[in-house]
Amino acid sequence: MAIRRKKDFPVAQIRRFLEPGPIVLVSSAWKGQANIMTMGWHTVMEFTPSLVGCIISSVNHSFEMVRRSRECVINVPAADLAAKVVGIGNSSGRDIDKFAAFGLTAVPATRVKAPLIGECFASLECKLVDSRLVRAYNFFIFEVVKAHAATAPRYPRTIHYRGDGVFMISGANTSRYRRLFRPEML
Amino acid sequence: MAIRRKKDFPVAQIRRFLEPGPIVLVSSAWKGQANIMTMGWHTVMEFTPSLVGCIISSVNHSFEMVRRSRECVINVPAADLAAKVVGIGNSSGRDIDKFAAFGLTAVPATRVKAPLIGECFASLECKLVDSRLVRAYNFFIFEVVKAHAATAPRYPRTIHYRGDGVFMISGANTSRYRRLFRPEML
Repeated sequence: MAIRRKKDFPVAQIRRFLEPGPIVLVSSAWKGQANIMTMGWHTVMEFTPSLVGCIISSVNHSFEMVRRSRECVINVPAADLAAKVVGIGNSSGRDIDKFAAFGLTAVPATRVKAPLIGECFASLECKLVDSRLVRAYNFFIFEVVKAHAATAPRYPRTIHYRGDGVFMISGANTSRYRRLFRPEML
Repeated sequence: MAIRRKKDFPVAQIRRFLEPGPIVLVSSAWKGQANIMTMGWHTVMEFTPSLVGCIISSVNHSFEMVRRSRECVINVPAADLAAKVVGIGNSSGRDIDKFAAFGLTAVPATRVKAPLIGECFASLECKLVDSRLVRAYNFFIFEVVKAHAATAPRYPRTIHYRGDGVFMISGANTSRYRRLFRPEML
């Protein structure tokens, strides 16, 4: 599986990747170990600063790695990675090195110690900026401090989870409603 | 446009509708007025209690209605409502009655005063359970106390926003990866 070539992407516009609700892979690093988890519960929260909120369950090995390092990378996989996404969700970083086990490439990030996943088409370097709901809900608020995105295809097919083993694969993109928007509402 | 017939749906399973990231319509009621807003920034937070977190910007007329009534309904529209979804996002309840202006049907809810939108295929009655991040981020945490869902089609085509006037329309659903899941990870 190829590493996708990426360019810098404006952090204020990362809604393009996250707002449609794809399953993502969260990579983290702590005390010399790198790990990956599968995550489906996330939301964009603000454009500038570029904020993303998400649930990382405390049963995940990644929970303490992210909480202690206060960093992670949110990577967006396309449908070609679906089987690996399931395998990563099934396994724990307590038992295996997921980069090695799933044949994924840890690419150094620029602003955080957590690695980018080279095979994903977008990678968002994140710093934890608000942890006050971590104890109550396992809810982390991150600022995206640097974003990388493949330039082609413009909209890879993404994987969206419905529970019970069912994925929705992203469908067509359309600008046909664009003329209906008031410009300030885009 | 027809009102969709719905059945009760288990609140612990509403991820089926929200986790893939559709644009939703939030209906609210306060002091005799009902209103609707378009919302794209939301995430499932817990199964039981059934929690959903979302951003309702303070510039929206719905912000004070939801904050004061501490209730809303999250309604999921299918692609046939796309033009109305844009129109609702363009306009303000300060100026118009959106149910009348967009030809939508306010159906009484059972657990909240906010109305269901009859034309949507799923409606989630919500009570505000945590407002401590409202001031900082306009972030509301709701408990889904009652859910209604159309029984057919099983997966209507949903609308997902990418910003800049571009929608992604949900694509195919697949259970082909289901056999790869460990049962407790479904």
